[in-house]
Amino acid sequence: MTKKVQPRTLPGFMELLPSDQILFNQIYDTIRSVYESFGFLPLDTPTIEYSEVLLAKAGGETEKQIYRFNKGDHDLSLRFDLTVPLARYVSEHYADLTFPFKRYQMSKVFRGERPQKGRFREFYQCDIDIIGNETLPLIYDAEMPAVIYNIFKRLNFGDFIIRMNNRKILNGFFDSLNLKECSTDVLRIIDKIDKIGTDNVREELLNIVDDSTSVDKIIEFISIKGSNEEIIDALGNLNITNEIFNEGVNEIKQVVNYLKLYNVSEENFIIDLTIARGLDYYTGTVYETNLKDYPGLGSICSGGRYDNLTEYYTSQHLPGIGVSIGLTRLFSQLKSEGLIQNDRTSLTDIIILPMDDSVLEYSLMVANKLREKSIKVDICYTGKNIKNKMKYADKLDINKVIIIGTNEVNNNTIVLKNMDTGIQEEYDIDIFLEKHI
Amino acid sequence: MTKKVQPRTLPGFMELLPSDQILFNQIYDTIRSVYESFGFLPLDTPTIEYSEVLLAKAGGETEKQIYRFNKGDHDLSLRFDLTVPLARYVSEHYADLTFPFKRYQMSKVFRGERPQKGRFREFYQCDIDIIGNETLPLIYDAEMPAVIYNIFKRLNFGDFIIRMNNRKILNGFFDSLNLKECSTDVLRIIDKIDKIGTDNVREELLNIVDDSTSVDKIIEFISIKGSNEEIIDALGNLNITNEIFNEGVNEIKQVVNYLKLYNVSEENFIIDLTIARGLDYYTGTVYETNLKDYPGLGSICSGGRYDNLTEYYTSQHLPGIGVSIGLTRLFSQLKSEGLIQNDRTSLTDIIILPMDDSVLEYSLMVANKLREKSIKVDICYTGKNIKNKMKYADKLDINKVIIIGTNEVNNNTIVLKNMDTGIQEEYDIDIFLEKHI
Repeated sequence: MTKKVQPRTLPGFMELLPSDQILFNQIYDTIRSVYESFGFLPLDTPTIEYSEVLLAKAGGETEKQIYRFNKGDHDLSLRFDLTVPLARYVSEHYADLTFPFKRYQMSKVFRGERPQKGRFREFYQCDIDIIGNETLPLIYDAEMPAVIYNIFKRLNFGDFIIRMNNRKILNGFFDSLNLKECSTDVLRIIDKIDKIGTDNVREELLNIVDDSTSVDKIIEFISIKGSNEEIIDALGNLNITNEIFNEGVNEIKQVVNYLKLYNVSEENFIIDLTIARGLDYYTGTVYETNLKDYPGLGSICSGGRYDNLTEYYTSQHLPGIGVSIGLTRLFSQLKSEGLIQNDRTSLTDIIILPMDDSVLEYSLMVANKLREKSIKVDICYTGKNIKNKMKYADKLDINKVIIIGTNEVNNNTIVLKNMDTGIQEEYDIDIFLEKHI
Repeated sequence: MTKKVQPRTLPGFMELLPSDQILFNQIYDTIRSVYESFGFLPLDTPTIEYSEVLLAKAGGETEKQIYRFNKGDHDLSLRFDLTVPLARYVSEHYADLTFPFKRYQMSKVFRGERPQKGRFREFYQCDIDIIGNETLPLIYDAEMPAVIYNIFKRLNFGDFIIRMNNRKILNGFFDSLNLKECSTDVLRIIDKIDKIGTDNVREELLNIVDDSTSVDKIIEFISIKGSNEEIIDALGNLNITNEIFNEGVNEIKQVVNYLKLYNVSEENFIIDLTIARGLDYYTGTVYETNLKDYPGLGSICSGGRYDNLTEYYTSQHLPGIGVSIGLTRLFSQLKSEGLIQNDRTSLTDIIILPMDDSVLEYSLMVANKLREKSIKVDICYTGKNIKNKMKYADKLDINKVIIIGTNEVNNNTIVLKNMDTGIQEEYDIDIFLEKHI
């Protein structure tokens, strides 16, 4: 007897049973379909790249998490996101691309971090980005939330809210308080407000900002709430003369206006001045998305605008904007919250149960004709009797069953059984194919 | 200025421009759609697994080619095919699966071999397998070529031929010549007949088979040609009493009969006694598929039946049958032979060109309504004038262009321009949405 190895997967790697995989694919396909409906082009970059290329920018945590190894003479790494490969791709194929270059990529990325609840070492990112050549019109900052809006409307996971801010507002504001030098630290602290609350944010801010009046102003600033119009008015009323700040306020005002044209409801879209996004490359509009009833899930779709995608590879100036859905994590969270449920154990529309081998020819004729009509058909070849065959259909949760025996062959009919209702009806085969499919 | 890294990918890793990616995805989606229409369930196993698990069986060349590395305390490998992960999956989730278990997986696999023309280090395999519990009816051996037939009919790359053999015929035949012990070597030599020709096969056989009468019989055997019926008759006329041989002949006879029920044309399907498939785990029916006019491409879809998928992981007895399409290689070959061509640079059905910002509201209203009808719509926000905007549409090869200016807004119309014919027509917007979409 062969020595057995215990069949198992690594912790932090999601693997689904077919029913969940079907559900996952439905969500994946919906996202893809919305991305395509907005004119995004598909991309599929390699999983493995030169470490030198992938790590051109990276440092710190990212570098520690990366799966990096040698093969032959090459120092290789698995991609840890889809943005760096996009930057490399756009730099490499610049001459062959049409700008603004709108692309989607929905692929697995890899991060060897310590696995914890809701964290994965291998996970799908579903990214869209729009890359401009030298410039990129501001209206694209409204197209991003419009895409997100259409996706989560169609996915129907429940009420969601897209929260938007503009880094220029934050940067200009800190500049006006002479806090420019520590603005990265301040932003990092502000970013935690949802997790640790206002009081803790104030305390942490006092550690790096000497002046408590400034801290009060920061807290006052990030406490501005209301409708989008009210927030924009309140920002104006701060009477800050900083140029960057006012540029940011103008931008956010315009993006809000554009969003109305995109039919994005105010119910699903608000300005939130506390959003900074930890990553230091965002330079304008930034987004996060939450499920209203499940704020604990964190942001399910985030992104923003950056000044220059490709600075590590070319001297071209290519500003861009993008968002990403971390689908593996989202799927896992939605499942454990019970917000999504697999309702199908099979993709098959109809299963044919031939009573014995003498009716195979007829059964396959029916199957062929159904498949010609784009019906997904399986045939049960196992099971000693009709009861066994029914069990197979039942286990796969296929609710339309066609039973074929000698009678059906002789009469040119089929018996259709609805497994949910138990109702069984006989149809002339031609009438069935014409009228009931 | 930031130090630049040369943007580049590794040799042996395919990366496509958007137009080719669209073409690739069309083929991928067609294969997926046919797989699903035959009742196969989707699977998506991890890219990285424990080396111990992935290499339970492997040895020799496979082990040398594998991407293997350590991370933390783990000895990890990238999957080199989809069959080993399937075996692990079925063993691990045995209790949760319904048998016969029909699954497809279309994912990237990795082999660090020396890249050469048509060989890739990272490539898509598109696999289907049907796994039985203890037994698996022979009719599934006909379902495999039926699936292949439907795929290549729909993909329409040109005339193709599915060639089938049965390992029992070969094994029984060699047994009858008392060549059982060197049958693996003999099979390996026979397998090369397409590449090296009959004379070289004879010569190589004489190196391992002492008896030249036996070599003559082998050559006679593998030279049997004709229609499927003629080949089956010729096999009977050999008057070989070996039990395994006759089992094989009976099986192939039945599979040929089943295939008629599956509507697979004899033009696309022949018995070929020279096919052995190098891999040593096939035990019954084996397949290869060729494009008739391009035999040089080699087999574009291969597979067969195996006795026990999971022997390295469980003591369950799980026979199966499967085929695989190496899509990356196939795509690359078809492209370089000029058998496929990208005819689209974009997926977008219609692009809207707003003449200026004053018509954005109306333009977006049109876009929203078109998207509601599942039309893929892009809007051109760049370009100083209509000529620039037209150029964008032209570069993306979108042949339906909607032009919107102040006149159109005032008249509640749109101007539709067909970029291929140059014909430009004005439509009332409601009539256009109702009748022309």
